[in-house]
Amino acid sequence: MIVTIVGLGLIGGSMAIDLKRCAFASTIYGVDSNKEHCQKAIELELVDAIKPMDEAIWAADLAILAIPVDAILKTLPEALNHISKNSVITDVGSTKYEIIQSIKDHPKRSRYVAAHPMAGTEYSGPEAAIKNLFQEKVCIICDKEKSDEDAIESVEKMFRALYMEPLYMNAKDHDTHAAYVSHISHISSFILASTVLDKEKSSKTIFDMASGGFASTVRLAKSSPKMWAPIFKQNNENIVEVLETYIKKMEDFKDFIKNDDKEGLLKMMEKANEIKRIIK
Amino acid sequence: MIVTIVGLGLIGGSMAIDLKRCAFASTIYGVDSNKEHCQKAIELELVDAIKPMDEAIWAADLAILAIPVDAILKTLPEALNHISKNSVITDVGSTKYEIIQSIKDHPKRSRYVAAHPMAGTEYSGPEAAIKNLFQEKVCIICDKEKSDEDAIESVEKMFRALYMEPLYMNAKDHDTHAAYVSHISHISSFILASTVLDKEKSSKTIFDMASGGFASTVRLAKSSPKMWAPIFKQNNENIVEVLETYIKKMEDFKDFIKNDDKEGLLKMMEKANEIKRIIK
Repeated sequence: MIVTIVGLGLIGGSMAIDLKRCAFASTIYGVDSNKEHCQKAIELELVDAIKPMDEAIWAADLAILAIPVDAILKTLPEALNHISKNSVITDVGSTKYEIIQSIKDHPKRSRYVAAHPMAGTEYSGPEAAIKNLFQEKVCIICDKEKSDEDAIESVEKMFRALYMEPLYMNAKDHDTHAAYVSHISHISSFILASTVLDKEKSSKTIFDMASGGFASTVRLAKSSPKMWAPIFKQNNENIVEVLETYIKKMEDFKDFIKNDDKEGLLKMMEKANEIKRIIK
Repeated sequence: MIVTIVGLGLIGGSMAIDLKRCAFASTIYGVDSNKEHCQKAIELELVDAIKPMDEAIWAADLAILAIPVDAILKTLPEALNHISKNSVITDVGSTKYEIIQSIKDHPKRSRYVAAHPMAGTEYSGPEAAIKNLFQEKVCIICDKEKSDEDAIESVEKMFRALYMEPLYMNAKDHDTHAAYVSHISHISSFILASTVLDKEKSSKTIFDMASGGFASTVRLAKSSPKMWAPIFKQNNENIVEVLETYIKKMEDFKDFIKNDDKEGLLKMMEKANEIKRIIK
């Protein structure tokens, strides 16, 4: 199977590594608007060849858009124009509703499968690509009924080859759940980094004290702003809603501390502790 | 050397494991008000024997208080009363100012060394004790000049045996830095867990989507409320101050998203990205 990957960063590159290793892809064509990324992807042997977008899409049995969600909005209709009749196009964007809306009337809509593999690290670019990134993680497939059956099968087969478990949701639900769990985690981490850098002027102190739990809590704040800003924009309503809850709870917590309300404080922390039941 | 550890939880238990392994301690006596913890500590061979507090302190060359900071406030003066002339007492509390204030006029003040080893996990109790917990981490020693030189040496030697690097600060600075880096991380994680549990009603969805960065960001929310509430209380002024900055930044971030202020959003995230320079 010929696989084309548009976007040779962390996600696209990591998919390339494993789709080749497991022999799902016989050939992988890479596309990237960044010439250095293209060169690096060849050097690292992530892809067999770099091709211009139209040509690479046309040649593909399966094309994957692994680019930021604003770029997916722009690229997807054009890519659908160039996909050949029996081929399939999918994406890996962290938002789904707006992307699906943008091609809802496209004559080849049914050759597109909207997907979101829930995996990543805080790093970006082709050098960040690693093997086994997707193993045992979940891949969400949205609005399944709008895609041809064989297109869904083809994409499921690819994700199963990466040892992912497919889950099905409609796009609206996906975006809500993504805001409630994943997007808020990134924002909480960005704000933590921003606060600590603002209050604590000594880099050495931050470094020395990071083992007190800061390092893992702040990890996501290293994520790419160019990738995340468009996600926050496309999912703004859900995110603003969850941020309002977050801020309200943070205000309450501050008041408990300020007013030495031990009971309120303990109750809120014990409630938060319930996350143990879910995340081991 | 006979070491007495008061509090056989994650920290006390992990110290016991390594102080015995590296032969720093020839005998370890354990003290804990929780009988199940005492029994477990014997079963797990964390300590050689359980003794009543007074007896165990009296027998010790070095006594370590590894209990919550409110319990340290109560126990330290009493423990100092029972420590023998050439022995030393230290603690591992996450706050230092109030603890040091509480014994500042104690006749044996100089036999106490105020310490804070910056290491831990989100788990608690004797079963949570692990080896190598402290390796390559920093241990902060406060108000060094108030302790006898040989007492400082003895405590430094112990932390070095755990492969920790000692750092020196005054207690006020310690508490400020701890609030700015460690304590805020825990609060941010508690609020994240609390928000996600509130907004996302499906445990399965939380579990499935946790790989999108949620799991590591929320890790500290599993921490023990009974250990953390007294830390927040003792360090309330610093914490309220840093929370005010945190909330202000979160409000700004929400407004950037709400008003589609791409530039403001990118700028704030790029600033947060600078944490990469410090935490690799």
